[in-house]
Amino acid sequence: MSFRTLHFRGDHLVILDQRRLPAEETYLELRSADAVAEAIRTLAVRGAPAIGIAAAYGVVLAAQAKEPLGPAIERLRSTRPTAVNLAWALERMKTRLEASFSALCEEAEAIYAEEVAASRAMGEVGAALIPDGARVLTHCNAGALATAELGTALAVIRAAVAQGKRLQVFADETRPVLQGARLTAWELMKDGIPVTLIPDVAAGHLIGRGEIDCAIVGADRIAASGDVANKIGTRSVAANLFLAQRPLYVAAPWSTVDLSTAHGGLIPIEERDPSEVTHVLGTRIAPLGVPVRNPAFDVTPAAWVRAIITERGLAEPELGAALARLAKTR
Amino acid sequence: MSFRTLHFRGDHLVILDQRRLPAEETYLELRSADAVAEAIRTLAVRGAPAIGIAAAYGVVLAAQAKEPLGPAIERLRSTRPTAVNLAWALERMKTRLEASFSALCEEAEAIYAEEVAASRAMGEVGAALIPDGARVLTHCNAGALATAELGTALAVIRAAVAQGKRLQVFADETRPVLQGARLTAWELMKDGIPVTLIPDVAAGHLIGRGEIDCAIVGADRIAASGDVANKIGTRSVAANLFLAQRPLYVAAPWSTVDLSTAHGGLIPIEERDPSEVTHVLGTRIAPLGVPVRNPAFDVTPAAWVRAIITERGLAEPELGAALARLAKTR
Repeated sequence: MSFRTLHFRGDHLVILDQRRLPAEETYLELRSADAVAEAIRTLAVRGAPAIGIAAAYGVVLAAQAKEPLGPAIERLRSTRPTAVNLAWALERMKTRLEASFSALCEEAEAIYAEEVAASRAMGEVGAALIPDGARVLTHCNAGALATAELGTALAVIRAAVAQGKRLQVFADETRPVLQGARLTAWELMKDGIPVTLIPDVAAGHLIGRGEIDCAIVGADRIAASGDVANKIGTRSVAANLFLAQRPLYVAAPWSTVDLSTAHGGLIPIEERDPSEVTHVLGTRIAPLGVPVRNPAFDVTPAAWVRAIITERGLAEPELGAALARLAKTR
Repeated sequence: MSFRTLHFRGDHLVILDQRRLPAEETYLELRSADAVAEAIRTLAVRGAPAIGIAAAYGVVLAAQAKEPLGPAIERLRSTRPTAVNLAWALERMKTRLEASFSALCEEAEAIYAEEVAASRAMGEVGAALIPDGARVLTHCNAGALATAELGTALAVIRAAVAQGKRLQVFADETRPVLQGARLTAWELMKDGIPVTLIPDVAAGHLIGRGEIDCAIVGADRIAASGDVANKIGTRSVAANLFLAQRPLYVAAPWSTVDLSTAHGGLIPIEERDPSEVTHVLGTRIAPLGVPVRNPAFDVTPAAWVRAIITERGLAEPELGAALARLAKTR
């Protein structure tokens, strides 16, 4: 990759500030757990695997500063409720609180390294699903910017391209935060992978006209049933594909699978600040005082998902049973 | 209404400049057919019924200026291809080209008056479908700003409210041009009708959670089959409602019904400038040079529409047969 989403440098975490992309490629040095929490809350770093990794290093920074680790972990956990990777990474760190400082560092490094390995494995597993010449829709950013490197959905696309397949990617712009327009378009253009930007509203039209062969998205939490919480708007992409009998693939590391949540209706959905809707990059677009709903995620029913791509292999319908089988493979 | 979308004043057409809403309520005086064509092309005036009316007055202005009327009509017609009301109004004006100037004026006034009457009739026909307490989604702006007054979808909402029904309207923001955020929210707030703004991507989530009872939208062209061309994104709303078994109502004057187009696949879909996608109100949101698709309309299959509300009455499935019956009522 020609950029690094986040990496640890001994006494600080360096992150690419995703709020400023694509206009500026600026890196931030985060030197405390609270700085990490603030970066997660404000979307300077985002993407389920990436915020898990960032939170793990946040615990390392708290330990370095000799802060009480329990409260620091709770502050990190409370930043965002939907992506289970955050809680998952913090639970792993909690198992090392009684051990040495170097054990904490090792755990964070292990989380990072496992996510890198998972990205690569998802790419291999998923690329087989994508035919040469495919026109592939993606929503939000499930790329290198959402992970340690390569991505989840975009790891699959990168692996297919590396195999010599010619793909055309369509990137939903992904209002309100525009991760597709600002981040996915940026990172695919950097890689020289053909990408066409569309407004979210155009996906149904292109699917209906037969101009999309499949979609690949990431996930923030996958319930035991196979229901998938992902960036708001994913459900509409899924509905359109389901009615057109075209496949929706979900690529996610096993850290995103939450078998303790039975079904999608139980996944907490973050509602974010109305200003994300009433403003675009600081410009007001709506009347003063208009009430707003701004859910940041939605849930796609398992029945609308053709397969879930994980580093443990492919889960195909019935997704719940397939996830239960994969759970036993490690 | 506390504003007028468009009205003729003897030697010029006054339009509310919708490009500047909601920040500014500015009126433009259009004194030539070409000024009208430019206002239609740039969306200073928009909405299928409104652009039909505007084009009719454009012909009056051309006649006043003693321009050749055939070419003026073609320049007006070529501004936007999807909404059939534009071609329909110009065809009506063409039948009067050989008559006196006052006959041309009368025809434009008749088109205006008929659209006003149609709005009122659609309100009465449609309000019966909306229960007290309903949470009603709408997409784009099918309001007073899209017509001579009252609107199409919003005429139904206004009539239901006038009957004492308590409604909660959810307005999709409607990227890329944001007619929902800028126009629908503005005009409903002016009327004191409760409106909540949502990003387009949130509609599927709210529908999936049972937080939307029905949707009402306008139309730009309805084919003989009952397939509905409307603002891009309507199809996704429809797909979500269809899968959730909630009704989608389409409100449109008979001038939007195009029985000469057999089905939706034959409706020309305007593709607009990429800058509408790469920029929001002048602010760049996407990387320089990114390829863009920007279809301005999509087609919702008749099978996903519960009813079409017209001034001639309600068309219910089978929509094609129902439209054929209504065609004979006048």
